[in-house]
Amino acid sequence: MPEGNSSDVHAAVSNGNPPPEFELPYPDRPEVITANLLKLVEQTKSPRNRFIFKVLVKHLHQFVNETDLTTDEWMTAILFLTRVGQKCTPLRQEMILLSDVLGVSALVDSLNNPVTGGATENSVLGPFYTEDAADVELGDSIASEGKGEYMYVEGQISTTEGKPIPDAIIETWETDANGYYDTQYTDRTHPDCRGRLRSDKDGKYGYRAVVPVSYPIPGDGPVGELLLAMGRHNMRPNHLHMTVEAPGFNKLVTAFYPEGDRWLSSDCVFGVKKSLVVNLKEINNDEEARKRGFPKGGSFKLLSFDLVLVTEEQHRATRSQVDEELKQ
Amino acid sequence: MPEGNSSDVHAAVSNGNPPPEFELPYPDRPEVITANLLKLVEQTKSPRNRFIFKVLVKHLHQFVNETDLTTDEWMTAILFLTRVGQKCTPLRQEMILLSDVLGVSALVDSLNNPVTGGATENSVLGPFYTEDAADVELGDSIASEGKGEYMYVEGQISTTEGKPIPDAIIETWETDANGYYDTQYTDRTHPDCRGRLRSDKDGKYGYRAVVPVSYPIPGDGPVGELLLAMGRHNMRPNHLHMTVEAPGFNKLVTAFYPEGDRWLSSDCVFGVKKSLVVNLKEINNDEEARKRGFPKGGSFKLLSFDLVLVTEEQHRATRSQVDEELKQ
Repeated sequence: MPEGNSSDVHAAVSNGNPPPEFELPYPDRPEVITANLLKLVEQTKSPRNRFIFKVLVKHLHQFVNETDLTTDEWMTAILFLTRVGQKCTPLRQEMILLSDVLGVSALVDSLNNPVTGGATENSVLGPFYTEDAADVELGDSIASEGKGEYMYVEGQISTTEGKPIPDAIIETWETDANGYYDTQYTDRTHPDCRGRLRSDKDGKYGYRAVVPVSYPIPGDGPVGELLLAMGRHNMRPNHLHMTVEAPGFNKLVTAFYPEGDRWLSSDCVFGVKKSLVVNLKEINNDEEARKRGFPKGGSFKLLSFDLVLVTEEQHRATRSQVDEELKQ
Repeated sequence: MPEGNSSDVHAAVSNGNPPPEFELPYPDRPEVITANLLKLVEQTKSPRNRFIFKVLVKHLHQFVNETDLTTDEWMTAILFLTRVGQKCTPLRQEMILLSDVLGVSALVDSLNNPVTGGATENSVLGPFYTEDAADVELGDSIASEGKGEYMYVEGQISTTEGKPIPDAIIETWETDANGYYDTQYTDRTHPDCRGRLRSDKDGKYGYRAVVPVSYPIPGDGPVGELLLAMGRHNMRPNHLHMTVEAPGFNKLVTAFYPEGDRWLSSDCVFGVKKSLVVNLKEINNDEEARKRGFPKGGSFKLLSFDLVLVTEEQHRATRSQVDEELKQ
C-alpha cells in the first residue's frame, strides 16, 4: 500500500509474470470462465500441483454450476469460511474441525493409510494431542487419582509376522470422567490423562488409565453452526487415543472405541472403525485391582488390544498399490 | 471450556441432536465415509441447504479421491485456507480474492446475471467500492486535478425497449494514474476518483474522470502466493467501475475496459466481457476540452457508453429460464 498521496508514489506493479502466450477468449459465458482458468492452470510448474489445481477447479466450478449458487449463498459461504479461519488460534484449529465434520480428514487418513492384512488400523489424530505428556513406567497411571473410573490398558506390539516389537514408543491420551481433555481446563498446571511409555523386551505394554467419556466437539464456532444447520449432533463416542512409533515401522495413529456408546456409529468426525471397537471387560476383584496398582481397589475395566505395525516398506508398497487402483 | 479442574465441573454435553435413527455402518473404507455423510446430510431441514450440502460433499470427496491427496497436501490446504481467513480485515477480504482468482466470483456473477437481449452485461464488483463517494453534478469531475490523464464519460440509460430512464443513480469509481484506488493510500482524507450522480430527464449522464490504469491485486497474502505457484500474473486491465440503480430495474454492476490493455484477455479475476471493452476516443481539441470543464484544456479521452437496464421482472424471468436449462 502506498505510503502517501504524493506524486512520487510508485505505480502498482505486477508479480513479474507476463500475460500468457496463448490466446484467451473473453470470459463472456460461464463455461468460458472455467475453460480459461483451466488453460491458465497449465502454467503451473510443479506437475503434481498442476494436477491438483485442475481437479480442484473442475469440482469447484461443477459445484457452483450444479447448485446454480445464488450471489447471497456465495456471500454466505465466503463469510462462513472467513469466520472459520478467524476462529483459529494456536490452541484451536477450526479449519481442521470443518475438514473433520465433512469427512475429509477421515477420507484423507483412510486413503493414506490403507488396510494391510492384519495390521492395526488408523484413526484420526484429533486436536488434543500435546507434546508435554509425562513419561510413565509400565504399569504406572497416566491419570491422577479421582479423574474417573479405573481402566487398565494392556497388549502386545508385534510385526505382521507376529514378531514382538520391543522398545516401541507409545503415546496415549484421553478424556476424564467429565468428557474433557486436560487442555480444556483453564487452570491446567500439568499434563493429565496422557502419558508416554515404551513396550518391554517382549513387545508388551500395560498402564493404568480411566474409562474415557463421550464428548462434543467445540460448538461455539462456525463448525458448530454448520452441524446444527445439518441437523447433526456434535458428539464423539468415548475413546482412548494411542500412537506407536518404532524404528523401521510406519507410525501408527489410532484410537480404541469401547462398545456400547450411543454415538459410536455416528461419530461426528468419522473416526471409528469396526476393528477398533473394543470390549471393556469388567474385573470385579479387589485383590486383582490392588495388584494392578489401583489405590482404592474394588473393580476396574480391562482394555486388551494387541497392536500390529507395518514396516515402512510394507506401507509404501500398499500405498503404491492403492495409487495404481485409483488410476484405473 | 470448563473454568476449573474441580469436581463440580459440568460434563460436556451435546448440541441437543440425538444420534440418527437410521443405521450407519462403521466408516471402515473411504467410500463408506462418503456414503455415511450423505445419509447424515439428509437430516438437513432446509431443502435448498440439503441439496447444496449434498453437491458439496460429492465434489469435495471426489476431489480428495481423484487427487489421492496426501496427508501433507491436506495439511498445506488447511493452513492455506486458515491464512486466507486470518488475512481478512474490515478493509480487506482475502477469501473473496481467492474466489476471484479461482473464477468462482465471475462464475456466480455470470449464472446470477444471465445475458438478456440487448441489456448491458455485468462485471465483478471488486473490493474497492465504498459508500462515502461524494455526490457530483452532471458534467462535474469525480477526480481531483492532477490524478491522471483527462477522460470524459458519457452516455444514455434506457430500457430494453429504448425508453430513457431518468433519475437513475450512478456510482462510479476507478484508479488514478498510479493504478491505485483512493482507499489504498494510507493518508486518505476524502474520497477521490469516485462519485455518485443521477441521469437527467432524458436518461443521459456525463462526468469528468481520469484514464484508469491497470493494477495488481494484493500480492502480499496467501492468494498472491497461489498465483505465483500457478505461474499466473496478478494484474487487472485498466477499467472504470459503474453501478446503476433505478426503481423497478435490476441493479446493474458493471465496468468498462478500454481496448489495448495488455492484461485485457487474461484479467486475473475474469471480469472482462467483450461487450464491455470500449474504445477511448482521443479528442485533441483545446476548446472542446475547456468546454467540458477540464481546467488545463489540451486534449482528453472520450468514453461513450449507452447503458440498457432490465426490469426486475425481466431479470427474474431470465434467471428462471437458466435454472430450467441447468436442470435438464
